[in-house]
Amino acid sequence: MQANYKKLLKFTNKIADIKNAIAVLNWDQETYMPPKGQGFRAQQIATLSGIAHEAETSTAYENCINELLEEPSLNPVESKNIQLLKRDMVKAKKLPSDFVIGLSKATSKAFHAWITARKANDFELFKEALSEMVKIQQEKAEIYGYKDHIYNALMDDYEPKATVQEIDTLFSEVKTKLSPLLAQIAKSPQVEDAFMYKQFAKDKQWDFGMTILEQLGYDLEAGRQDLAEHPFSTTFSPFDVRVTTRIKENNLYDMLWSCIHECGHALYEQGLSAAEYGLPCGEAVSLGIHESQSRFYENNIGRSEAFWESNYPGLQATFPNQLGDVSSEDFYRAANIVKPSLIRTDADELSYHFHIMIRYEIEKQLIDGSLAVSDVKEAWNASYSKYLNINVPSDNQGVLQDVHWSHGGFGYFPTYSLGSFYAAQFEAKMVKEIPDMFQEIRTGEFSNILTWLRTNIHQHGRFYTSQELCKNATGETLKFDYFMDYAVKKYSAIYAL
Amino acid sequence: MQANYKKLLKFTNKIADIKNAIAVLNWDQETYMPPKGQGFRAQQIATLSGIAHEAETSTAYENCINELLEEPSLNPVESKNIQLLKRDMVKAKKLPSDFVIGLSKATSKAFHAWITARKANDFELFKEALSEMVKIQQEKAEIYGYKDHIYNALMDDYEPKATVQEIDTLFSEVKTKLSPLLAQIAKSPQVEDAFMYKQFAKDKQWDFGMTILEQLGYDLEAGRQDLAEHPFSTTFSPFDVRVTTRIKENNLYDMLWSCIHECGHALYEQGLSAAEYGLPCGEAVSLGIHESQSRFYENNIGRSEAFWESNYPGLQATFPNQLGDVSSEDFYRAANIVKPSLIRTDADELSYHFHIMIRYEIEKQLIDGSLAVSDVKEAWNASYSKYLNINVPSDNQGVLQDVHWSHGGFGYFPTYSLGSFYAAQFEAKMVKEIPDMFQEIRTGEFSNILTWLRTNIHQHGRFYTSQELCKNATGETLKFDYFMDYAVKKYSAIYAL
Repeated sequence: MQANYKKLLKFTNKIADIKNAIAVLNWDQETYMPPKGQGFRAQQIATLSGIAHEAETSTAYENCINELLEEPSLNPVESKNIQLLKRDMVKAKKLPSDFVIGLSKATSKAFHAWITARKANDFELFKEALSEMVKIQQEKAEIYGYKDHIYNALMDDYEPKATVQEIDTLFSEVKTKLSPLLAQIAKSPQVEDAFMYKQFAKDKQWDFGMTILEQLGYDLEAGRQDLAEHPFSTTFSPFDVRVTTRIKENNLYDMLWSCIHECGHALYEQGLSAAEYGLPCGEAVSLGIHESQSRFYENNIGRSEAFWESNYPGLQATFPNQLGDVSSEDFYRAANIVKPSLIRTDADELSYHFHIMIRYEIEKQLIDGSLAVSDVKEAWNASYSKYLNINVPSDNQGVLQDVHWSHGGFGYFPTYSLGSFYAAQFEAKMVKEIPDMFQEIRTGEFSNILTWLRTNIHQHGRFYTSQELCKNATGETLKFDYFMDYAVKKYSAIYAL
Repeated sequence: MQANYKKLLKFTNKIADIKNAIAVLNWDQETYMPPKGQGFRAQQIATLSGIAHEAETSTAYENCINELLEEPSLNPVESKNIQLLKRDMVKAKKLPSDFVIGLSKATSKAFHAWITARKANDFELFKEALSEMVKIQQEKAEIYGYKDHIYNALMDDYEPKATVQEIDTLFSEVKTKLSPLLAQIAKSPQVEDAFMYKQFAKDKQWDFGMTILEQLGYDLEAGRQDLAEHPFSTTFSPFDVRVTTRIKENNLYDMLWSCIHECGHALYEQGLSAAEYGLPCGEAVSLGIHESQSRFYENNIGRSEAFWESNYPGLQATFPNQLGDVSSEDFYRAANIVKPSLIRTDADELSYHFHIMIRYEIEKQLIDGSLAVSDVKEAWNASYSKYLNINVPSDNQGVLQDVHWSHGGFGYFPTYSLGSFYAAQFEAKMVKEIPDMFQEIRTGEFSNILTWLRTNIHQHGRFYTSQELCKNATGETLKFDYFMDYAVKKYSAIYAL
C-alpha cells in the first residue's frame, strides 16, 4: 500500500473511532441512560463532536488527501475514497464556523419552539423559528452553491446529486398514476383489521420479532436489538450494528413492521466492507438507498403473501387467542390495508408517498421563496384535502407532526419515497435473477435475497452513486413505473380491483 | 471566578468528557456488546485513550496549571484542585513514552501468558511473563521515586501516600489478633448454609436486588443495574453511576452481596460533587476509601443482624419453598459463615484478610527483590498452609487465581483490606453520632447513614487524603483495632465463643 495512503488511514480510522464512540453514547442515551444523566451526556457528545470536527478539518489531513489526489499508484477503490473524501472536505469547509454556530443556535431555537408549539397544538408558535430556519437553510444552499434549483443544494446532504427535476418527475407520476389507484381502492370493499388492535403481550411480541430478525439474516453476533421510544438502527462498526424497536400492547402493526424495517437498515450496514472502515467505500451511499433497504424488507418482503405464508403459523401459535380465528389471507390483507390518514409514520405504503410529496413541495417552495412561512399551514391542509381527501383537524395532526424542519432537515423527506421506488425496481430485477425468490420466502429462506443485495448494493459503499448503483444492478436509472407495477399488481389482488 | 481557572475548566471538562465516553464504551463492552464488536471496540477505546492522554499532557494545559499554582485569589477547593492536578501531571510525565509503550506490551504479554497458564493450570507457563512484569514494575517505581521502600511508589497509584510501614503494621495485627479469632472459630460448632445453594430463580433474585439498591439510597434516576460476568460499578458523571451484578441460580450469596457491595461503590460516586466534575475534588480519593464504602455496605450493613431482621421476611416471601423453613437467625449466621477457603473472591470477611496479606507480602518481596518469581508458588502455598491451614491443590486455585499481576496491578491488593478496616472505624464513629443507627436499619431506614457518609466522606472528593479524611471523620488515623472489635463482637455471638 502506498505510504501516504497508509497515513491517510490513520486519520480516517481516528475520525471513525470518535464518531462511532458518539454513536455509542447516543445509542445508550436512547436505550438505557437514566434520566438524570442527560446534562453531562449532552456535554460529552458535544465534546467528542468538537474533537471529530477538528480532526476532519485539520490541515494535516487535508494535505494528506490533496497529495493522494495526485497519486497515480492507487487502485480504483482507493482513488474513489480520495475523491469522495476531498468532496466531503470541500463541502464541510465551505461553511464558515460562524455560520455553523448560527445554524446550531437556530436549530436549538427551532426545536424548542416546535416542542412548545406541539404542546399548545398551535403552529403560530413555531412560525418565527421556522422562518429563521428557512432563511438559514437558504443561506446554506447559497454557500454550497447549486445548479438549476436552490433546493438541489440541500438534498445533496442526504441524497448526493439528486435534483428537483428528477424528484418533480417522480412525484408528477405519483399524482397521475398513484392517485387513480388510491381512488379505486377507496371505492372498493374495505379491508378489516380490528384484530390487529387486540392485546398482544409485549414479551411474546419481542420474541417473535427476534425470530424474524434472525430469519432475515441479521447477524446477532454482530448486533443486538433493544427497546427505544423511537425505533432506529445505529452502527458502531460493520461488526456491531444495532437495531431498536418499540412494542405497543394493543397494536401489532407497530413492532412487527418497524422491527423488519430497522432490520433492512441494519443488513445494509452489516454488509458494508469492514476493510473500508472509516472510508467512503465503507459507508452507505445515500439515505435514499438506505431507505430502499429498510422498505424493501418492510414492504416488498415483510408485507408479501409469501412471507406470511411462512410466518403466520408461528405468529398465530404465539397469539392463539387473538389470531386463532384469523386466516392467513385476512392477516395478509390487514398487513396491507390502505387507509389514507393524517400521520405520515402510520401511513400505508401507497398513501405514504402523498405525505412525502406534500412535505417536499412545501419545503421546496419555502426554500425557493415561492411560499411564505405564514402560508405553510394553509398549503399543508389544502394538500391533504386535495390528495388524500382528509381534513386536518389540528396542527399537531398536520403541519406540526414531524420533527424534521425543527432539526433543520430540509431536503431529507424525498429520500423516503426514493427508498420505496428503488426497492420496487430492485425487486423487479431480483425476481428475474432469483426465479424462485418468492418460493424461497414461502419456506423462510432469505439467503439468496441477502446475497443479491450484498452483491449489488451493500458491498459497494459509496463507490458508485445511487443512480449508478441502480443502473448497475437493474440496467436502468430509477423509474417510477416499477413501483407502480408492484402497487397495481399487489393491491388489485387485495382489493379485487 | 478567576479567568485562568475558567480556562482550566475547559481543559478538565474536555478530559473528563473523553474519559467518561471511554467508560461508556467499556460498560457497553461488559454488558451488551455483541461478540464480534470486540475488535473495533478495542480500537475505538484505544483511540479515545490516546486523545485523552494528549489532552492531559498538553503544554497549554500544563501552563495553565502552572500559572494557577501562583494565583493568590483561589479559594481552598480551587487551590487543592490545582495542587492535585499538578501532582498528577508531574507523576504522569515522569514515565517516558517509550516506557509506557513497553509497559503496555508487557501487560499484554503477561495477560495472555496468564490466560494460557490458567488453561493449562500451570504456573510454569506464567513465570517468564511475570518476571518481565516484575522487572518493569520495579523500573516504574524507580522512575516515580520513593522514600523508605520501593513498593511505596507502586501503592501510590492506588492509595496515595500509603506506606509499607503502615501496611506492615496492619498485617502484623492481622497475624497476631485475627489469627487467634479464626482459630477459635475453627474449633467451634460450625454454621450450616446448605440452603444457600438451593435453586433461586434469576428473575426473582434480580427483583430482590433492585429493592435493596433502592432501599440503601441508590438513585435509580441517576444510575441503573445491568448484568455482567464480573460485577463492577462505573461512573459517567455524578448523575449517571451504574452498577452491574451477576446471578447464579444455585448460589444466593453471589448476587446478594455483590449487589450490595457495588451499591456501596456507586453511592460514593453518586455523592461526589457535580460542581467539581472533572476535577480532583470531584473524584474518589483512593481505592482504599472506595473499598471502605463498598465493604461497609456489604459487610457492616449487609451482613448485620439488623439488616436481615428488616429484609429477611421479604427474601423469605420471594423464595418461600427454599427459605420457608430457615429462620432469620440461621440466615444471618449463614450470611456470616467463616470457612477458610482457597479463592479470595469467595472468602468470608475474616479469612479474606489473610488472602490479601499473602498477596501483599509476595508482591512486596517480588518488587524489593527478596523473593524470586521461581519461588512465588512455593511461598504462596506455604502461606496458605500456615495462615489458613489449607493445602493448595492446583495452581488455578492458588497462585494463578487473580488477574491483578498479569494486569500490572502491583500495589493494588492492600486497598481491599484497607477498605474493611476503614469501614469498621467509620462504623464505630457512626454509631456514636447516630445512636439509633441499627434500630433504623431494623426498620429499613438508611438515610441517616448515607447522610453521614455524604458529609464525612463522599462530598470531599480528593480534598483530603485518605488518612486526613479518616482523622476528620473519626478523630484518629486508621487503627486495626476497630476492625478487631467489630469482628470479635460479631463472631463471638455467631459462633458462641
